[in-house]
Amino acid sequence: MSETPDKPVPDDEEQRAQLASDLRDAIDLGEGDWIRDTLDDMHPADASDLLEHLSTERFEAAVELLDGELPSEILIELREEYREDAVEIMSDEAVVEALDDLETDDATAVLEDLDEDRRERILDELEPEDRAVLEASFEFEEDTAGRLMQREFLAAPEFWTIGQTIDFARDNAADLPTDFYEIYVVDPTNKPLGYVLLSQLLRTGRDVKLADIMGSFNSDIHVDQDQEEVAYQFQKYALASAPVKDHEGRLVGMITVDDMVHVIQEENTEDLLALANVSSADGSDTVWESVKARAPWLGINLITAFVASAIIALFEGTLDRLVQLAILMPVVAALAGNAGSQGLAVAVRAIAEREMEGKAGRRAVVRETLTGVVNGGIFAIGVALVALFWFQDVKLSIILGVAMFASFVWAGVSGILVPLTLKRMGADPAVASSVFVLTLTDVMAFFSFLGLATLFLL
Amino acid sequence: MSETPDKPVPDDEEQRAQLASDLRDAIDLGEGDWIRDTLDDMHPADASDLLEHLSTERFEAAVELLDGELPSEILIELREEYREDAVEIMSDEAVVEALDDLETDDATAVLEDLDEDRRERILDELEPEDRAVLEASFEFEEDTAGRLMQREFLAAPEFWTIGQTIDFARDNAADLPTDFYEIYVVDPTNKPLGYVLLSQLLRTGRDVKLADIMGSFNSDIHVDQDQEEVAYQFQKYALASAPVKDHEGRLVGMITVDDMVHVIQEENTEDLLALANVSSADGSDTVWESVKARAPWLGINLITAFVASAIIALFEGTLDRLVQLAILMPVVAALAGNAGSQGLAVAVRAIAEREMEGKAGRRAVVRETLTGVVNGGIFAIGVALVALFWFQDVKLSIILGVAMFASFVWAGVSGILVPLTLKRMGADPAVASSVFVLTLTDVMAFFSFLGLATLFLL
Repeated sequence: MSETPDKPVPDDEEQRAQLASDLRDAIDLGEGDWIRDTLDDMHPADASDLLEHLSTERFEAAVELLDGELPSEILIELREEYREDAVEIMSDEAVVEALDDLETDDATAVLEDLDEDRRERILDELEPEDRAVLEASFEFEEDTAGRLMQREFLAAPEFWTIGQTIDFARDNAADLPTDFYEIYVVDPTNKPLGYVLLSQLLRTGRDVKLADIMGSFNSDIHVDQDQEEVAYQFQKYALASAPVKDHEGRLVGMITVDDMVHVIQEENTEDLLALANVSSADGSDTVWESVKARAPWLGINLITAFVASAIIALFEGTLDRLVQLAILMPVVAALAGNAGSQGLAVAVRAIAEREMEGKAGRRAVVRETLTGVVNGGIFAIGVALVALFWFQDVKLSIILGVAMFASFVWAGVSGILVPLTLKRMGADPAVASSVFVLTLTDVMAFFSFLGLATLFLL
Repeated sequence: MSETPDKPVPDDEEQRAQLASDLRDAIDLGEGDWIRDTLDDMHPADASDLLEHLSTERFEAAVELLDGELPSEILIELREEYREDAVEIMSDEAVVEALDDLETDDATAVLEDLDEDRRERILDELEPEDRAVLEASFEFEEDTAGRLMQREFLAAPEFWTIGQTIDFARDNAADLPTDFYEIYVVDPTNKPLGYVLLSQLLRTGRDVKLADIMGSFNSDIHVDQDQEEVAYQFQKYALASAPVKDHEGRLVGMITVDDMVHVIQEENTEDLLALANVSSADGSDTVWESVKARAPWLGINLITAFVASAIIALFEGTLDRLVQLAILMPVVAALAGNAGSQGLAVAVRAIAEREMEGKAGRRAVVRETLTGVVNGGIFAIGVALVALFWFQDVKLSIILGVAMFASFVWAGVSGILVPLTLKRMGADPAVASSVFVLTLTDVMAFFSFLGLATLFLL
């Protein structure tokens, strides 16, 4: 893509819409050559973006018009759903060719999309060396450093000089990864001793030994480590790349920051969706996928909602005599539920950013409880005044205020204790916690309001 | 920090807790030297982590024990709240010294924490050259590329060879940024023409000209661009760094991926908190800060909750005669509200990831409506059956089911249309949308259930 500062492709929505419409026409008219040329002229990320704006049917038609030969650099940029579709249509030969072009981490991602039979068949077609490397990746669990890492990196012994290292890189240019940011210095058993940033290598004289300028690692990543832990280290130490070690501490791969950015986004999205009781979501989801991702949580909510109803049913006699209670009780539940969700969201974020360990967790419990007390006080007075103005009933208003206060404090406590407890139990604090917290606050809201009314108003 | 693969500092919670406790003791005993030595031995990111586990009072005491001389590399790693506190305590001289050590983007971040008087005073103390550069940063709005960029980068004319470039870097080692990943090739007016990755420079022979191997830019970042747009480009093109241009298209700075990882986290956190009606949050917030961040939204919720009450009040006569309605109506509101929040969370994520443009937005509206229809159908039958079993009343159960179905479809439609409309209006789709959606579903739930009951049960 050429640079046109005044009309950059990614910024010009109109131009993008025109291109998308041209592409749709080309697909409908079967103009495979036009599609091929257009995609070739674009940055792979832009090309994949354009393709992802197509409906699934048109996207599949486009891949077929390209004779199932989607360029590997576009393939790897596609979102998982589209990539799976594309690989489905592509011939085994086309997939093998794409895998040849890709670095191990990307090739592994493509292979993950295939069912096992086809994966075996395609692995058989690869050069034995490439095959061994990719098969090794599959020995690691999904979402671990071993799966994410690439096997291509530049390592050098500590006695090499800068000059030797540069000469080596020039002589072996073809075997190096497309882009990398540091060189790993290793001992004779291939254990990493330190790293030299390329920017430092660049400014250092040819005669200096790597050992004299290498830095020691801050990161400590091994093949079995969860991607979330890896991403945390990247963030903490502001890394551009980091070495991955096997069980014996030998250097076996490298992870780069672009993959970690992806992981960070993924983890954030998971938290946000989990808090809203959605198990997964993607812009291209079908209705059926959406239903599957949401109905189970609604099912649980169905049960908890009837639990809250059962609390109300306990006070059927009271409600029968004082219909105002039915009008006001949702106010208590709504506000306390909101307060509980607020505390929960703050807690889930803080846990994700590791701000909740040790003393910090205890401090947060105190803060959330006190926040419940303060906001509870404010809004107890607020609702009591509105109710007084509305129903002209002092006793009813006081009871509403007291129930509100109790529910707010309870909401504050559950908003922090539920996620902290889930975390301590080894569960994801974002998953299931909002159902718990809302049920707890609903029960408290209805019980305290209707209970107090039964005691003091009848 | 030395590398100890079996017992890495960041992973060993016990060891970290011990260190934190030792630090607290040292602060209470006034052992400034021990604190200084301990912090010096750690990676700045680990040191700042340790300090952030202290209460505000102890943290301030620690900075005072260090004679207000917190090392600049620790200072810049601290979360904003702690950094502000530290800078408050540090003498002007100590701040000036820290600024001298930092690159422009980091120095700007520190200066942002100061009130204007003190900032002016400290800028006056700097070398005129450094001062001019930092003052220029403040001419750009907060959260723009101009503020985030560093002024240190390596640029070279296109006729230079690899050899000349390496020699230049060696001769000017001290003026180069600590770490960088690419060299910018510029024309005589300092406009960027292309880039050469350091990894490519490394593998290319000394005699090759930069112009012959440079790549053309995919990113297009100018000083006024919002950080969110910049982060989007980094993600899309998997960038490690990118050049920033001024209004005339001249190269004036560089942004690196570690800053963008921070922005991505920040934006994600904002979305998650906004959906839960929290305007800001940090692990170290005080009760007062928490109240301020949450009470305004609760205030709005107070109003909307009474709007829902007013709907219920319309049917006071009906409720008076049929108390079961009061028991069941919260079930409709709770489930439909949950369904609305689900759709909303999915929409907010998709908008943030730019998956909602053009046709994709329209497709999402259809999908969300149909998801409402399907889930509405399932849970209408579900609640109707539970109610039938409970109250043995066919008509009541049917009305509950119909109201549930209507509320689900309505929740699906509002869950997608509210954020899309906010976005079209130029507002943040995450802010305020959950209050809107929940109010809309509450009103629909109460109105449809009680309305149908009034029509068919009395």
